[in-house]
Amino acid sequence: MSNDERFELAKRNTLEIIGEDELRELIKSKGRPVVYLGTAPTGRPHLGYMIWLLKLADLLRAGFKVKVLLADLHALLDGVSWEELDGRYNYYAAVIPEVIKAMGVDVKGMEFVKGSSFELSGKYMEDLLRMSTNVSVRDATKAASEVVKLGDNPKLSGLIYPLMQALDEEYLKVDMQLGGGDQRKIFVMAREQNPKIGYKPRIEMMTPLLPGLIGKKMSASDVGSKIDFLDDEKTVIKKMNKAYCLEGDVDNGVMSFMKNILMVIMGDNGARFKVERPDKFGGNVSYADYEELEKDFVAKKLHPMDLKNAVAREINLLFGKMDTKKLKKLSGKGYGDG
Amino acid sequence: MSNDERFELAKRNTLEIIGEDELRELIKSKGRPVVYLGTAPTGRPHLGYMIWLLKLADLLRAGFKVKVLLADLHALLDGVSWEELDGRYNYYAAVIPEVIKAMGVDVKGMEFVKGSSFELSGKYMEDLLRMSTNVSVRDATKAASEVVKLGDNPKLSGLIYPLMQALDEEYLKVDMQLGGGDQRKIFVMAREQNPKIGYKPRIEMMTPLLPGLIGKKMSASDVGSKIDFLDDEKTVIKKMNKAYCLEGDVDNGVMSFMKNILMVIMGDNGARFKVERPDKFGGNVSYADYEELEKDFVAKKLHPMDLKNAVAREINLLFGKMDTKKLKKLSGKGYGDG
Repeated sequence: MSNDERFELAKRNTLEIIGEDELRELIKSKGRPVVYLGTAPTGRPHLGYMIWLLKLADLLRAGFKVKVLLADLHALLDGVSWEELDGRYNYYAAVIPEVIKAMGVDVKGMEFVKGSSFELSGKYMEDLLRMSTNVSVRDATKAASEVVKLGDNPKLSGLIYPLMQALDEEYLKVDMQLGGGDQRKIFVMAREQNPKIGYKPRIEMMTPLLPGLIGKKMSASDVGSKIDFLDDEKTVIKKMNKAYCLEGDVDNGVMSFMKNILMVIMGDNGARFKVERPDKFGGNVSYADYEELEKDFVAKKLHPMDLKNAVAREINLLFGKMDTKKLKKLSGKGYGDG
Repeated sequence: MSNDERFELAKRNTLEIIGEDELRELIKSKGRPVVYLGTAPTGRPHLGYMIWLLKLADLLRAGFKVKVLLADLHALLDGVSWEELDGRYNYYAAVIPEVIKAMGVDVKGMEFVKGSSFELSGKYMEDLLRMSTNVSVRDATKAASEVVKLGDNPKLSGLIYPLMQALDEEYLKVDMQLGGGDQRKIFVMAREQNPKIGYKPRIEMMTPLLPGLIGKKMSASDVGSKIDFLDDEKTVIKKMNKAYCLEGDVDNGVMSFMKNILMVIMGDNGARFKVERPDKFGGNVSYADYEELEKDFVAKKLHPMDLKNAVAREINLLFGKMDTKKLKKLSGKGYGDG
């Protein structure tokens, strides 16, 4: 892959890159740049995670070393006990590579790091305090506002997390951080603050924020609103059937999933998206890319019901490539549902 | 000393004790309770420190073990470099016992602890994060407001310090914390927050806040507004002469110093406060306690000029009991003025 191709692959489908020129230079000068993404191993990973899992897959293919920071301290502060934590950690560290492998991408350049393995060191604490003398309460609040549930009476922890996220860039020795577009203000703060305590600013890459696949908004409390990576075929079909998707209108989670995730993966693997339907409804049809699909959907030549059935089948095919048996065992240990 | 006497000595001249009944019980049940006071080794210690130095002396006499936490991390965050820090630390750790010894009190139960010796441990960091999930930004701001210079755009560090102050009680294994009345909101927060993360609430003892000895307010930037423990005799006399002190009006730093500090120390040592003046101005006079002195002062039988001369002489006598040579050497290393 040429450096231009590596850059284009790294960049594709991103919402924004702070330091895009730096990324171009980085790829030119470094065969194996390092990127990190942080996530707290709390709730169950679900299909919505695929937006950044796909980007991590892109980056792996573009020659990046990918570090996934499993923020166990944050999970702990979020109410997960030390006892539960190991189980959750192990499940996350297993399901993430399984999904990426199912996309057809090698996970060899991927590494998992526990936050507690370095965030409790004396030097880290000292740096956190040093940074806290430079960040105003107002700016920390602004940075955290879109990510942390601050509510009417925010807790101090919510203002500390963004600083830790900035420091993690230095302690993980990365060139770039990846996150959703909701991280933008934290990323901007990290760019600003790290140099003030003697560390280099990192490239910040953002994936778009997608609407929930099923409802308009994904709700953590409503199990039915998310597709779990361990859902069986029937459950996937049932959940997909409930998905919000109006005929001819692309503004929904299903079309968004097609555009940003499924058609990208299928395209990478040279596969066509097949819709099976009786002849009286137009007969079978298949699409090589999202644009073709969208054209038919907007023209109401593709009905939501047929689309949803086809999507469910593709999801089930993808899930079928994962080592579900192993994952179920780990899920049982992590969430007590084995 | 009976337990009642120990309690009365511990309590005398305090502004407030949160947990006064607990203190009474503590003294009854424990021969050697532990108290801590924290101070950041930044600026030069001055005569204003004597309000809490005297209270530490009281507590030593009442059988307490006294831990003085020299908050080097806070000093560091306040702009003192690691290089300067050792020198400042050493000067503080020398001048504090010297002053207490000059008061006639044994410093055997006194210990100095560096904040960095335990505040950078992983467990401390974890506890800090745990506590930060319980403390709202609003409450931390309120707690810090009287102590930290928060200004219009306060830094996050100012909200973190009060939590550290609460945790220090646990990590120093103390029964009580001592501080000025300006610490009240932090102390209340500490009482509230430590139990939420499994630690016992401590007794909180406060000394009154005195007006500056020289000006109405002590100003850190104006050297002349404070009497330094290393000022020579002439400097003390010169500074005292500038002190704000209207005839017949007790509302000033000099009378406050007499009431809360000097007359207490002299009384403890069975000494009388002597004022020397020419016969035409009333001749020499001496006082056994503050009440007598105040009566004469209010009745304008004691002129501010005569009072100030006598106070300067007593301060110089006190300073004469300290190992000034040793302190000057350490001061030189700590502040580059040797």
